[in-house]
Amino acid sequence: MTIRVAVDCMGGDHGPHVTVPAALEFLARHDDAAMILVGPQEVVDKALAAAHASPGPRVRVVHAPEVVEMDEAPASALRGKRESSMRLAIDLVKAGEADCCVSAGNTGALMAMARFVLKMLPGIERPAIASVLPTQHGHTLVLDLGANVNCTAEHLFQFAIMGTALASAMDHSERPSVGLLNIGEEEIKGNDVVKDAGELLRGSGLNFYGNIEGDDIYKGTTDVVVCDGFVGNVALKTSEGLAQMLAAYLREEFKRNLITRLSAILALPVINAFKRRVDHRRYNGASLLGLRGIVVKSHGSADSFGFQFAISRAYEEAKSELPVLISARLQTLQVEVAT
Amino acid sequence: MTIRVAVDCMGGDHGPHVTVPAALEFLARHDDAAMILVGPQEVVDKALAAAHASPGPRVRVVHAPEVVEMDEAPASALRGKRESSMRLAIDLVKAGEADCCVSAGNTGALMAMARFVLKMLPGIERPAIASVLPTQHGHTLVLDLGANVNCTAEHLFQFAIMGTALASAMDHSERPSVGLLNIGEEEIKGNDVVKDAGELLRGSGLNFYGNIEGDDIYKGTTDVVVCDGFVGNVALKTSEGLAQMLAAYLREEFKRNLITRLSAILALPVINAFKRRVDHRRYNGASLLGLRGIVVKSHGSADSFGFQFAISRAYEEAKSELPVLISARLQTLQVEVAT
Repeated sequence: MTIRVAVDCMGGDHGPHVTVPAALEFLARHDDAAMILVGPQEVVDKALAAAHASPGPRVRVVHAPEVVEMDEAPASALRGKRESSMRLAIDLVKAGEADCCVSAGNTGALMAMARFVLKMLPGIERPAIASVLPTQHGHTLVLDLGANVNCTAEHLFQFAIMGTALASAMDHSERPSVGLLNIGEEEIKGNDVVKDAGELLRGSGLNFYGNIEGDDIYKGTTDVVVCDGFVGNVALKTSEGLAQMLAAYLREEFKRNLITRLSAILALPVINAFKRRVDHRRYNGASLLGLRGIVVKSHGSADSFGFQFAISRAYEEAKSELPVLISARLQTLQVEVAT
Repeated sequence: MTIRVAVDCMGGDHGPHVTVPAALEFLARHDDAAMILVGPQEVVDKALAAAHASPGPRVRVVHAPEVVEMDEAPASALRGKRESSMRLAIDLVKAGEADCCVSAGNTGALMAMARFVLKMLPGIERPAIASVLPTQHGHTLVLDLGANVNCTAEHLFQFAIMGTALASAMDHSERPSVGLLNIGEEEIKGNDVVKDAGELLRGSGLNFYGNIEGDDIYKGTTDVVVCDGFVGNVALKTSEGLAQMLAAYLREEFKRNLITRLSAILALPVINAFKRRVDHRRYNGASLLGLRGIVVKSHGSADSFGFQFAISRAYEEAKSELPVLISARLQTLQVEVAT
């Protein structure tokens, strides 16, 4: 079976210069994948030509005359950009012509369009952005990372259900543990929303570990980490900033003098292995969860290497028929969620 | 002039085993400092004896029969623990017998007691926890880091004023820049509280940079970073966790085989310089801002080396008469704040 990936070629900081080569690279390494490149015909054709490629059985181009701008208001994009590359990529999923879609474009617009076109799974009010992060001994699934910034306790509870379903499908584990991101382990800790969410989770059938703190994310204390989108986004971006700072420090220390420069050369294999391991591009690709279809958001600044990981995430989710698994999981969880 | 530091000897995970040696070490390196060690007389005497020290002109012991537990509810500690080491250390500041106090104890109890005993500066409703964090090219002051978890826009605005005052006093800069931690740079981004706070800040006389994102903390984009205590605490703890994970990864890579072990030995000076530079213990000591007196909170798990940095922060703040500077700064800012 061929997995057909619809790629919004125009999204992100670099547009087709990154998305088209990434799609072609991915194709070269996956025989059972096909790409539907969505964007202005001329622009996509040019990007294909630049990569010495052309449309064929595994590369289809769908013309989209419009582009959603990175700073465009989601509502305006939803109303006004029905012929945009982003919208048409999602439409292809809805129509069953693509098994999943990927975009590095405007997150808010992507969310709004995906929700409008694909609709939500029963019991889920809003999509959440979920991403896998590395931990000391494996990985953890964190949500929400920025889709919902004014969350209620019920929203956090729904994130826990969706996260459980995704982690369970991804890791083939029956009851992944769920941690509620808080500022202390005790039940009395946190703001009102988190305290209420804690009560909902304790009363649910989920494998609720309890409150966790920020450092538990990278310790890998739980399989799933639940937080509101504001907190999750700040935690993620703060991590990016810290990693960059530490890398800059390490560079500076190795460049301090002749001897340290020499030791850097000798330590190069180790440094490169370390770099590969912490390369955030390998974790690029966040799932928009809760939809009746697969939509993956790439970091806007992703390069071709990073964008391939976002494509890969969409491809893997389609291959394991994730929405079906999540639906089934939602049913077996037998928890009461307002519809 | 001698700076008298009241030390809550019983706070933190390790109590007098850490606090007393740290206080003595600090004394040995600062001729103009004096310590008032607060705790059960017998316990403190024992800790002094273990360090081959005894009370003298620069080491006074104040007997406190009670101890605030790490998990005690702040309200209960405030009502019931009037003879605790934490409370008496704060009382010494109020009475003018100490110039500042340091505790590694229960944060909520420390806040409640400090606020009750010392009172707030005019125009400030609640204390905020402020800490200096390293950046790529210097440092930045972040607040709040966990004192206030249900913030209004007005609270965030007051944090900006206090942060400006502290950064201005610390760095001798006239108009430190203030960034509002958000999930995007655009004014329309963020939750309702942050959007309202942005409006207040834009209309103020502060040097408001605008919205910043998590990665801007460690980039050092602004001199002051303002956020609610929940978000700030998660960002800080997440950073701790990430740093630990990266250190563990680096260790693993260097231990992989004989050659990598050898290169680790050769790179040791660099690794040690790097370690020193990122040692979080050097940033231990958070200021409880907005009070009519100096109270510094140490990380509960701090060792003696780390606790000395918390003492040092209190000592430096007392030396520069920080509350006076902040009051003056508050007046010159001439901003309208509800009292």
